[in-house]
Amino acid sequence: MNKIYAKDLKNHYGETIEFSGFVDNIRDLQWVQFMILKDSTGKVQVTIEKSEEKNKEMVELISNLPIESTVKVTGTLMEAPKVKMGGMELIPDSIVITSTSENELPFNYKNLEGVNLDTRLDYRFIDLRSEKNTLLFKVQSTLARYMREYLYQKNFTEIHTPKLIGAASESGSEVFEVKYFDGKAYLAQSPQFYKQMALASGFDSVFEIAPAFRAENSNTSRHATEFTSFDVEFAYIKDYNDVMNLEAEMLKYALEKIKEIYGEQIKEIFGVEIKIPTLPFPVLTLEEVYKELKERYNYNIEESEKNDLTTEAEKLVYKLAQEKYNHEFMFVIDYPAEKRAFYHMRDEKGKLQGYDLIWKGVEITTGAQREHRYEKLIKNAQEKNLSEDVKFYLEFFKYGCPPHGGFAIGLDRLTMLLLEIQSLKETQFLFRGPSRLNP
Amino acid sequence: MNKIYAKDLKNHYGETIEFSGFVDNIRDLQWVQFMILKDSTGKVQVTIEKSEEKNKEMVELISNLPIESTVKVTGTLMEAPKVKMGGMELIPDSIVITSTSENELPFNYKNLEGVNLDTRLDYRFIDLRSEKNTLLFKVQSTLARYMREYLYQKNFTEIHTPKLIGAASESGSEVFEVKYFDGKAYLAQSPQFYKQMALASGFDSVFEIAPAFRAENSNTSRHATEFTSFDVEFAYIKDYNDVMNLEAEMLKYALEKIKEIYGEQIKEIFGVEIKIPTLPFPVLTLEEVYKELKERYNYNIEESEKNDLTTEAEKLVYKLAQEKYNHEFMFVIDYPAEKRAFYHMRDEKGKLQGYDLIWKGVEITTGAQREHRYEKLIKNAQEKNLSEDVKFYLEFFKYGCPPHGGFAIGLDRLTMLLLEIQSLKETQFLFRGPSRLNP
Repeated sequence: MNKIYAKDLKNHYGETIEFSGFVDNIRDLQWVQFMILKDSTGKVQVTIEKSEEKNKEMVELISNLPIESTVKVTGTLMEAPKVKMGGMELIPDSIVITSTSENELPFNYKNLEGVNLDTRLDYRFIDLRSEKNTLLFKVQSTLARYMREYLYQKNFTEIHTPKLIGAASESGSEVFEVKYFDGKAYLAQSPQFYKQMALASGFDSVFEIAPAFRAENSNTSRHATEFTSFDVEFAYIKDYNDVMNLEAEMLKYALEKIKEIYGEQIKEIFGVEIKIPTLPFPVLTLEEVYKELKERYNYNIEESEKNDLTTEAEKLVYKLAQEKYNHEFMFVIDYPAEKRAFYHMRDEKGKLQGYDLIWKGVEITTGAQREHRYEKLIKNAQEKNLSEDVKFYLEFFKYGCPPHGGFAIGLDRLTMLLLEIQSLKETQFLFRGPSRLNP
Repeated sequence: MNKIYAKDLKNHYGETIEFSGFVDNIRDLQWVQFMILKDSTGKVQVTIEKSEEKNKEMVELISNLPIESTVKVTGTLMEAPKVKMGGMELIPDSIVITSTSENELPFNYKNLEGVNLDTRLDYRFIDLRSEKNTLLFKVQSTLARYMREYLYQKNFTEIHTPKLIGAASESGSEVFEVKYFDGKAYLAQSPQFYKQMALASGFDSVFEIAPAFRAENSNTSRHATEFTSFDVEFAYIKDYNDVMNLEAEMLKYALEKIKEIYGEQIKEIFGVEIKIPTLPFPVLTLEEVYKELKERYNYNIEESEKNDLTTEAEKLVYKLAQEKYNHEFMFVIDYPAEKRAFYHMRDEKGKLQGYDLIWKGVEITTGAQREHRYEKLIKNAQEKNLSEDVKFYLEFFKYGCPPHGGFAIGLDRLTMLLLEIQSLKETQFLFRGPSRLNP
């Protein structure tokens, strides 16, 4: 595989090379044709002098070539300081058309003004050709790459837990049902139970990046029926501070890499300055948050809503984090235990051993120490009337299980916040919602 | 997170440390108690002198402690050349029980003789505690890690394509149906169409590691209804040799890493010597294979079966690869085109531009150059009477798409062959088959 990428062309001045890519543009002037080629890493100008006899065939080929076709050009790469595009041009000896775009694009992906998001999603394979999307998915890939790298360095094992499950778990109402031969199966909403199983099986520390499914019939910019969940769980923690610290360190590590590799491009194309967070991330209790929001921004919360952060309060938390801590992140702790899943640990006084992480005004994680003691776990499940539903899960804890905790991050959501994009629909490769299953 | 792993203990001689793990064994002698602790990286002996007054409480605690419980020990780590287990022992100041295994194990995972595989799968969370399984899943994680690393180095982007799809694709009969609000969805059998879409969208080169679903009602050691598929697809190839070469290089790279990190342990625990393959891998046409098998092993193939490799022929291919090429791998090419998917490319003479890769006598990959030209793709689909089913997919190619190819490997199957394990049921974290959805 000898494809030379646009970003590496500068190492080939004076050489006869082969360059392949999409035809981004053609300018056919009186004496010369300029053809701009692109791959995912950049662009290069191909210059064809019309007057030269040997170019005759090429000139004709270019005059009839629809843009968005793909070509393979063999030629000499010349330094050309006057050419805006990288200060180089490719002087072709031959051009081969490798595919032809015979059709007018359904919309101009280079200028999306006035293009409906649904149309873009209908033709997502066109929409993804934009400069923004090319960068977006490289950033998303790189984000996952370095979060994983951080975890590998910490001795974590990647696992692949089943998405087909035998029993509708935690919250049965939002689970997709699958016809499974003569019976039924369900699609996992999260690998929560199985990543904990791995720890009960002695795996020490695990992570998984995989689809998760939620049968929520809501059409918001933050919800999808399928999303990519980045799940982390590890044993032998002292308390949930260990979980918060690991998550903060992992995010810092990945953001540093993103800034290093794509910082300039992100600034240029998305207008976003990547800010590397300081450690530790600030932490406030839910009560402290509401106290600060009242004092600083005169935000009054209804008594009935004090159990959680409202969407508006989340947004103000961003303001608070910036003003008080010069930070984009904020951990919020001490949520009422009764609002949280039965497997989250409570201390002797019933206080929840968990947290939410808010980034740029949006919750990106719920994390916690888990209850690993069989007897207490049964009690918690009974209190929520779940003991029958989660019987198979409770079994994991009967034969010894180390103290542990973990968290999950939606990769699409993380990308959305990183690049300050409005909707999950734009950060999923192919968005899935109640009324969107295609392409 | 300050957990010290067993493998790193040797850096802490003479120090007061905290070590947490599962109780692997206890030997309670007249004057001394030995408690063996383990984590996923190894074991350590805790030695308690019964005669010492200060140990009184600990001694009592240990006498009543069921093995498989988890504990946290604080104490001094001493070099002790006589102790077989790593030449060290931990002299405890305090022991805290962090969870109690109050139950007799359903089977002894340290000696599986006579234990039915189904029983092991019913209690997979116990089965996974074995030394073999601990190593197996570290190897699997490491294998994926370095295959990915190889691809990152080659400028690949990781994508996450949807598993919920709107139309039952290629082979409708083997697709799971999902109740999707008031309609239906299906579970993706492979990300084939979508990874190609990424290339049509200008992504250059992509990979994905994700679950794939097959509604095959067969109970063999090689089939599962859900498995982890490692999918690779990249553009601007010259022909399918580029695809074979990339796959071979990627496998070699990952196997080198596995041998370096786990080679010794794999030899000890699985009795398998990791052999690093030489490049290029040997290549034979299907016809040449059958000719060689006849000449060398007097293997006669029925005329009607000559279109493909039989299971027995696959096994003999391993013998042939070893004897003729001193190799474990073999690419087989020139399968009859009519047996292959419509999106595999054929040359002008109709010859298939694809291959199978056989490792240790089992097919691990089907790879190919894909047909990227809209008109030809339509023709191929029509010939298989598929044009309606794959209409959405054909759209991807209407607006230009570079030449490309790719392949897929089942991660569970790869692990099975690497460690020479008999069944996929043992290399999946939680196996899924027609009659197995739990735990």
